[in-house]
This record gives sequence, structure tokens and C-alpha cells, in this order.
Amino acid sequence: MVKFSPSLFVLGFILLALGAAMLLTAAFAAFMREAQVSPFLSASFVTLFAGGAFIIANRQSQIEFSPREAFLLTTMAWVGACTFGALPFLLSADVSYADAFFETMSGLTTTGSTIFVGLDAMPKSVLLWRALLNWMGGVGIVVMAIAILPFLRIGGMQLFKSESSDKSEKVLPRPGQVAGAIVQVYLILTAACAISYSLAGMNGFDAVCHAMATLATGGFSTSDLSFAKFEAHSIHWIATLFMFLGGCPFLLFVQMFQRRPFALLLDPQVQLYFSILFVASLATAIWISAHSSESFIDALRISAFNLTSILTTTGFALGDYTLWGAFPILLVFLFTFTGACSGSTAGGIKVFRFQVIWIAFIAQMRRMIHPHAVVPRQYQGTRLSEEVIGSILMFTTVYLLSVAAISLGLAALGAEFTTAISGAATAVGNVGLGLGATIGPAGNFIALNDAQVWLLSLGMLLGRLELMTVYVLLLPSFWRN
Amino acid sequence: MVKFSPSLFVLGFILLALGAAMLLTAAFAAFMREAQVSPFLSASFVTLFAGGAFIIANRQSQIEFSPREAFLLTTMAWVGACTFGALPFLLSADVSYADAFFETMSGLTTTGSTIFVGLDAMPKSVLLWRALLNWMGGVGIVVMAIAILPFLRIGGMQLFKSESSDKSEKVLPRPGQVAGAIVQVYLILTAACAISYSLAGMNGFDAVCHAMATLATGGFSTSDLSFAKFEAHSIHWIATLFMFLGGCPFLLFVQMFQRRPFALLLDPQVQLYFSILFVASLATAIWISAHSSESFIDALRISAFNLTSILTTTGFALGDYTLWGAFPILLVFLFTFTGACSGSTAGGIKVFRFQVIWIAFIAQMRRMIHPHAVVPRQYQGTRLSEEVIGSILMFTTVYLLSVAAISLGLAALGAEFTTAISGAATAVGNVGLGLGATIGPAGNFIALNDAQVWLLSLGMLLGRLELMTVYVLLLPSFWRN
Repeated sequence: MVKFSPSLFVLGFILLALGAAMLLTAAFAAFMREAQVSPFLSASFVTLFAGGAFIIANRQSQIEFSPREAFLLTTMAWVGACTFGALPFLLSADVSYADAFFETMSGLTTTGSTIFVGLDAMPKSVLLWRALLNWMGGVGIVVMAIAILPFLRIGGMQLFKSESSDKSEKVLPRPGQVAGAIVQVYLILTAACAISYSLAGMNGFDAVCHAMATLATGGFSTSDLSFAKFEAHSIHWIATLFMFLGGCPFLLFVQMFQRRPFALLLDPQVQLYFSILFVASLATAIWISAHSSESFIDALRISAFNLTSILTTTGFALGDYTLWGAFPILLVFLFTFTGACSGSTAGGIKVFRFQVIWIAFIAQMRRMIHPHAVVPRQYQGTRLSEEVIGSILMFTTVYLLSVAAISLGLAALGAEFTTAISGAATAVGNVGLGLGATIGPAGNFIALNDAQVWLLSLGMLLGRLELMTVYVLLLPSFWRN
Repeated sequence: MVKFSPSLFVLGFILLALGAAMLLTAAFAAFMREAQVSPFLSASFVTLFAGGAFIIANRQSQIEFSPREAFLLTTMAWVGACTFGALPFLLSADVSYADAFFETMSGLTTTGSTIFVGLDAMPKSVLLWRALLNWMGGVGIVVMAIAILPFLRIGGMQLFKSESSDKSEKVLPRPGQVAGAIVQVYLILTAACAISYSLAGMNGFDAVCHAMATLATGGFSTSDLSFAKFEAHSIHWIATLFMFLGGCPFLLFVQMFQRRPFALLLDPQVQLYFSILFVASLATAIWISAHSSESFIDALRISAFNLTSILTTTGFALGDYTLWGAFPILLVFLFTFTGACSGSTAGGIKVFRFQVIWIAFIAQMRRMIHPHAVVPRQYQGTRLSEEVIGSILMFTTVYLLSVAAISLGLAALGAEFTTAISGAATAVGNVGLGLGATIGPAGNFIALNDAQVWLLSLGMLLGRLELMTVYVLLLPSFWRN
């Protein structure tokens, strides 16, 4: 039998952190003399109470995690946090629970799709709460990707098990220390981003909110215009840089601060990730400057910003890229699936999987020519076992089939073709922006009906937890002894 | 070193057959007193000459095929046949070589995309030639899928090696006999289809041409209206039936004619294939009758016809399904990728691959819960090795990435979003119909530019030869010793 106690015990602590963040937001609302003090206080009370109750009720249990308990914890942590994290929206804004849950799921999965229109006029406390959801979700994802997923052997993440455990090059000995170091790096980068934004001309509040959403590759903005609100070109380049950093493997930052200053530059995944962005931005800039009156340097700024935003699955927008014409639109659509690096805050299939698929593809063709040849396959110095390759291919296939299934569901619920297909892709990829008038950079998810919104919430959860973590719960044998 | 001689020797015989078919068409043109006698005679002369030369020049060589020679043969056979098969179009119609090659590739890969407008007024001999291309391509594909691909271990086709070789249930002992039996079955089914069409009211010429294009799941029609030209509902149902049969594994027909009369009904791949079509047609019929003035029974006829046409990758149209609304359009789009059964004339990913992926998916989740459990995986009584599962997952991934790459290429060459993405999907899937005004059921591929048409020809070739057969030729080590 699967034990619920350990998962609920850990969820309790997550809810305490969430409740504390609500309390902080309530204090901010009080300081700003906004009417949101009471909703945030109420939500905080409920959340802290639930968290405390979960801890007390399950404190006797052994905190031991078999794979099954770890799967349960992962899904329960995210669904539980969204359930309570939606309370401030529900209490302070005129939204349905479906929409409030969607907004929270979008925040904590660092997707960035929003159902709010009129952000610029919205109470600052609500905007801060959205930014905090992005930021907390981001750090949760990185810790999960480094400390949990490799041990659950999901989608080839077992490749990265060695990095924090049984290898000579190990950075940090224990998961607890890893998590601590990651949080430190995350804080430093966020602070650096906020200071940069501020120096480039953003006001303090916008700088802090956008910095949190940038490093989390989240995408919640304080304006309906997203980054088009800010005219300073330096702000656009700063955002591009920090979104890029948010899509890098965070363990490499930890290594850089220790004894490998060039860890980031030497990493093959980061190298390919950068090359893709560089080439795509250049090609798109050429396309834009050829098809419009933009100068090349402006076109490069706009294309680098938007493509980085999509590839890192952030979801900030700078202008409406759906007006650029077919090639950039298709590139953006394909980037929705690609994603950035493993162990980052980004979603999507992720660059390392494409690298492993390429290696395995070449090896398979070699074996087709020479059936009896032994073709060794390596990635970053690690031998690629059949199991890892199989996991990665299965992940990619299941990823695309999940997008197909969700898009079919959205269409059955009334969404038109482009909305259905790009909506499913942007949800599962945790990107945040779709294509078309409804959910494109000029649209808003409020236009969707409740059933569609629930389906997209499921899609965001699936993508964020690397699919298998959730699907495994549907297996009857998961619940049997 | 790879030897070209054996491939050229076999290509010679293929060209002889092709030249003979041109001669037959020339005779038909003469009988019909059409001006196309001379173009078909010229094309026939060139093709027969080339075929004869290839045979004579390479007759000394040992006809032994290592995997490399077999890969080379497969690609060369298709490209060579298209190169010469395009001559009649080039000589008799006012088309570019890009378009003539595209039309021939579309015919021989049984795709069914066309660059001809005004089919109804076109010389009968050209229409017959198009039907013959479909028909010859169809039988070529089945023989290739049964006699060659399993031994090249492409995309999990090795699963079906046993059926014709080393298993107790073996149907026919030798590849030559298999090919003969397949051709017999193919002839019988085509005749049955032509007679049925004729009894239901088609004229003899239309019946024969459409029967050839139906069994080949090819999709070339003699009318711009495709099957909307024929008002008799019985014709629509006959087409649906024979398209369905064209998508079934042809070896099962051979078995039925021998000692297993229920082979088709008992086959798990056929069962799922039928179930998908049945459920999807029913759901779509309900959708159509709810959203239009069609009666349910008419809606079922129309939806069954069109969905069968897409799933079997035929590409006949009965009305414009892109007007049905989001859900059916998305279903059609997803069906473009799905395909029918292995060892049929259909393209696409194919049903057995989804079955194997499902089995491997469940097994992988079980192993995630119980890391040390041994989870046996079987399909149709055969144990699924890691190699077969890996091949199938790789095939599916490479398939989708190829569609993505081709769609990006089409967009870079100027195609808009829907045309690019559905064009790539319909080419690689050998379906023939896309979405949108340009290449949808109401459009025509003549609207595309030459570069786009070449790219789609490549896509059709890739899809038809199960991708790997072509990609392997790009490997430098393929050409080295």
C-alpha cells in the first residue's frame, strides 16, 4: 500500500512556506494601504492551519520515501500548493475557482498564462503574489529536478543522478546541501536581475516582480503589455540575459561559485542551447528586417527577446510576434516544444533529450548498416544505457502524444484549431503564450471556458512534473500492494 | 564499399515494368484517339532503354544484398522510378519538371497530392497513367514492407520478420512466393473494387481508375471534386470499405485465402485500427449532425468516408471537411500522422507502433514503481526486445522531428503556418490532403512554388521509405568501407 503520511507531512511544510508568503503579501498590502489585506490574511490563516494540521497529524510517520511515496509527494505537493495558493485570487478578485486555480497553477509551474486583464490597474499586492508564485515555483522545480526526478528515473533524468551523488566530480555531498546552494544561487541571480532592471530604469516594484518572474522563467508581468511597457532597450537585453540564465542548469552556477568558473561555458547542453538561440535569433532578425521597416539591430533585439522568452518557456512578450509572418511563427511554435536545459526552471522537452536522441539516432543507423557492430553511446562522458535512451525516447513520444490528446480535448470543448493546438503545447511546455488571437501574445486565457481552463491546468501540471510522475498515479498497480 | 551494380540491376527491371505500363497507356491513348500517344511512346522508349541498359551493364554482378546494398536499392528504386515516371507528364502537359516529379512521387508513394487542376477535362490517358502510378506504387510498397524492411530492422518492422520466415505459423516459405501471392490478392481486391464501383453506377473508366487508387490508398481521382463527383451513396460506402481493406496488412488476406479465414478479424492491429475508425466516425457524425443540417446517417457516411480516407492515408475527399469546425479538423490533422496497419499500402506512423508504445509505456511505469521487477513485454505473442521498442520509439520521434523540420523549411520558403505544418504532415504521412485554403480538400498543390514542391517530394519519399532507409544514406560511414 502507498503511504499518504510522508507526502502529507512534507506538503505541510510547503503550505507553511506558502502561508508565510501570503502573510508577507498581506503586510505589503497593509503598507500600500490596499484593500487586499483581509483576503491575504484569511488565505494565509487557512493555509497555515492546513499546513500545521498536516504536519502534526503525520509527524509520527517515518519519513522514508519509496519510489511510490516520492511520486505521490511530487504530484500532491504541486496540486496541494495550487489548491491553497488560489485562495488569495478567489477572495480578492472576481474570478471563478477554475480561473483562480488556473492562474495559480500557471504561476507555480512557471508557465505564465494569465486570466487577468487590466494588470496595470491591479492592486500591487495581487501583482506581488503572482510574482511570488512564479518565483517559489521556480525554485521548487529546480530542487525537484535535481533532488527527486533523477532517482525516480523519469525521462532520462537518471543521467544527472551522478552529478549530485556517486561521481568523482561531485559538487555537493547531500541533497539538503544541494537544495541550500541552489536557493542561494537563485536568490543572488534574482537580486542581480532586479538591480539591473532598476538601474535600467524600472521602478523598484516592477524590477522586483519582473526579476522574480524572469529567473523563474515564469512570465507573469505587471502590465498587460508585458515588456512592451518598457521602452528602454537595455531592459529588453537584461531580460533576455536573465531569461537565458534561468534556462541554464542551476547546478552549473553552484559549480561556478566553487571551483569550476567555466562550468557553464564548457557544458555541451548549454553550448547547444546557446547556439540554437543565437542562430534562430539571427535568422529571425534577418527575416524581420527584410519584411518590415525595423532596423537590423532592433529586429535582433526583438527576436532575441521573444525567442529566448519562448525557448526558456518564460512567456514574456515584446510586441506581437504572430504578425511577423510564417517562418518566425513556426519557429516560435516549434520552440514551444523544445525547452531549455535540464535542472533549470524551464519546461518543454529540453535540449539534453534532443542531444541524446541524436546520439542514439546515429548509433541506431550504424547498427542498421553493421548489424553486429558494437556502437558505444556516450553523453557528457556518461555511457548511455538502453534504459536511459528508452526513457528519453518514451518521454518525448509521450510528451507529444499528451499535447495531441489535450489539443483534441480543447477542440472538443469548442476551441478553434490554432488555439487548441498551441494552447495544449504552451501548457504542457509551461511556456505561457499560444498562437492566434485568443491566446497569442495579444490575447488572454480568460476567453476560454472553465472546462478548457481545467484541461490546461492539467496540461501544465503534466508538463511541469515531466508527465510520468502524474501518469504513474493512474496505474492500478500503483495503488495495489 | 557499397556496390551500385545490384541496385542498378534491380532498378533496370523496375524501369522495364514502368516502361511497359507507359506503352500500355500509349496504346490506350491510341485507342481513345488522344494526342498523348506520342509523349507516352517517347517516355516509354527512354524508360525501356534505360532499364535495359541498367540490366545489361550490371548483369555480371552477383545479386547479393548486404544491408547497405538493400538500403541503396530501396531509395534508388523509388527515386529512379519517379525520375522516369515523370516523363509522360513533362512531355504531355505544360508543367515544370519540379511539378512533374512531384506528381509522380505523389503517385508512386500513394500520397495523392496533385498539381493538376481541371482533371475532369484532362485526356483519359493521363488520368489512367496517374491511376497506374498509384496502383504500381501500392504493390511496390507492400512487397517492400513485407520482403525488405523487416530484414533492415527499420522502425520495429523486424517484428514482422517472423511472419514470412522463421516461425511455425509461416504462411509462405520464400520471399518470391510471398510477393506473388501479394500481387494476386492485390489484383483480386482491385478487380472486386472496380466491379463494385461499376455496379454502383460509375462508368468503366472511372471505376477502374478509382479502384486502382483506392486499393493503393493513393487518392488520385479523375475529377477535381474527388468523390463528391459521385452522388450515389453506395459508391461512398464501397470506397470506404476498400480504402479500409487497403489499410489492412496484406499478408492477412493471403492467410485468409489459405487456411485462416478469420485472420483479419483476429488480428489485434486490425481490431484497433477498426475501432479507432468506428469511434472517430461515430463521434464526428454526432458532431456534424449537431452542428449542421445533415441527417445523422448522411453525417456518418461523410465522416466515415473522410476519416477512413485520412487514416488510411488515401486522400480522397467527399466535401470539404475543413468546414466542419474545430474538433473534426483537429481529428483529421492527428489522423494525418496516425496511419493504418503495417504491411499495407498506407503510410503514417501506423497502428502497431502505437500499440507497442502503449505496451512499453505501461512497462516503463511499472519499472519506475518497482525498479527491480522484471516486466515482460509481448506483442501478438512475440516478445518485445529492447531493440524493437527502441526502434519504434526512435522511428516515431524521428518521424515527428522530420515533419517539424520540413514544415519549418516550407515556412522559410514562404508557406503560411497551416499550409507549412499540414503540408509537411500530409507529405511525410503519404496522405495527400492538407488543411487550409491552399492545400486543403478545396485547394491544389500547384499553388506552391518549385522549392516547396521539391521539399514535399523529399517528404513523401522519406515517409514512404520509413525515413531511416533514406537517412542512413546520409551517414558518412555508409559510404566508407
